Amino acid sequence: MANETCCAGCNRPNLPWAGRGTDLPIAGCRFTLYPMTDQFIDIILGALQKTDTSAVWSETDALSTVYRGRLPYVTDAVQALFLNAYRDGVHMALEGQFSKGCPGDVSGDSVLNREGEAPNAAAVEKIHFPVHCKLSLYPLGDADYIDQIAKVWYMAQDAGLNPVTIHYATRIEGDVQAVFRYLYQVCDLMDHTPTVHHYVLHFTMNCNSPTVEE
Amino acid sequence: MANETCCAGCNRPNLPWAGRGTDLPIAGCRFTLYPMTDQFIDIILGALQKTDTSAVWSETDALSTVYRGRLPYVTDAVQALFLNAYRDGVHMALEGQFSKGCPGDVSGDSVLNREGEAPNAAAVEKIHFPVHCKLSLYPLGDADYIDQIAKVWYMAQDAGLNPVTIHYATRIEGDVQAVFRYLYQVCDLMDHTPTVHHYVLHFTMNCNSPTVEE
Repeated sequence: MANETCCAGCNRPNLPWAGRGTDLPIAGCRFTLYPMTDQFIDIILGALQKTDTSAVWSETDALSTVYRGRLPYVTDAVQALFLNAYRDGVHMALEGQFSKGCPGDVSGDSVLNREGEAPNAAAVEKIHFPVHCKLSLYPLGDADYIDQIAKVWYMAQDAGLNPVTIHYATRIEGDVQAVFRYLYQVCDLMDHTPTVHHYVLHFTMNCNSPTVEE
Repeated sequence: MANETCCAGCNRPNLPWAGRGTDLPIAGCRFTLYPMTDQFIDIILGALQKTDTSAVWSETDALSTVYRGRLPYVTDAVQALFLNAYRDGVHMALEGQFSKGCPGDVSGDSVLNREGEAPNAAAVEKIHFPVHCKLSLYPLGDADYIDQIAKVWYMAQDAGLNPVTIHYATRIEGDVQAVFRYLYQVCDLMDHTPTVHHYVLHFTMNCNSPTVEE
């Protein structure tokens, strides 16, 4: 499987790969959870046990986990995992990359026949805590990529997430539910932007940071 | 300062930003260190104390730290911080994004007058341990971006880092010194590729992972 897929590092033998992706609506998120505590294994395994991943295809290795399927279910599963891992006072970060449309993507490794409400939505909707988040959006192969980036900056402003531009990223902050909703909306907007065939949205969020900001 | 800079989330009032970047050779790396232990603060502060950051401009917030300057010194500082943070048996990850050429970048927030050997090179050259690493390269605004991505995949193969394509990234593995050398070489290649005006290289590496892979 691994040798048949591609993004940002293709290894298919026949160049070029452009246009050889899939027409299926497969979104994905590769992510890693970092609980900064000696109990990091318990926290990760405990969160996995609480999270319903039946609506996504999933694979884990020593560096990260990837979920693939329809965007709403991918987002639901990633969000639920982070929320289920939350413990009062424990500093924890989630790093991830949402992506869709890679020219080297394949039609497999996905769940696409799911319908209805996202399986974790009801279970986690009452979990609230503040997060810091940074994000970087990459609309690939589009000469006007900066316009897309600007658009989502204003979306963050409209969502009340106080966007601040920092070198190489945008910072936002707010309730974890609002931040995930925004990340979903950015991906959904890219999905519905005809000039963007392939996008990647990198994000990092954390909670209970011991760093005091001025 | 923050409001004057940009990348993947510009907030300048006058669109478009393309071409409004700096002509100065400012590379940067925004990164976060994740020691998965109760001692995470001691490890991070201890590593910072050992690392000479005089050859880069630096800023830290609750999510990450950014170093900016000439590429060899930026790489040297990030590498030294990770190597100085290493402790036997402690699972630790480093997440980062090297970048150069953002159309919204500015000429400030940098150190460019440094010359000679990188300040940490001699102090850390004897620190060796194996790492897993995943990376995703984004040459922005280039229709043929996939060709660049393919090129660096083969570079990893030539460097003996066993590249494996996974969804949305490439995995490599090897000694931490070889992996950092490779990340530097990818950035340096992008720097010297005339069709690539702006690139971002996201990477995550970890050591002492408890996850056993088949």
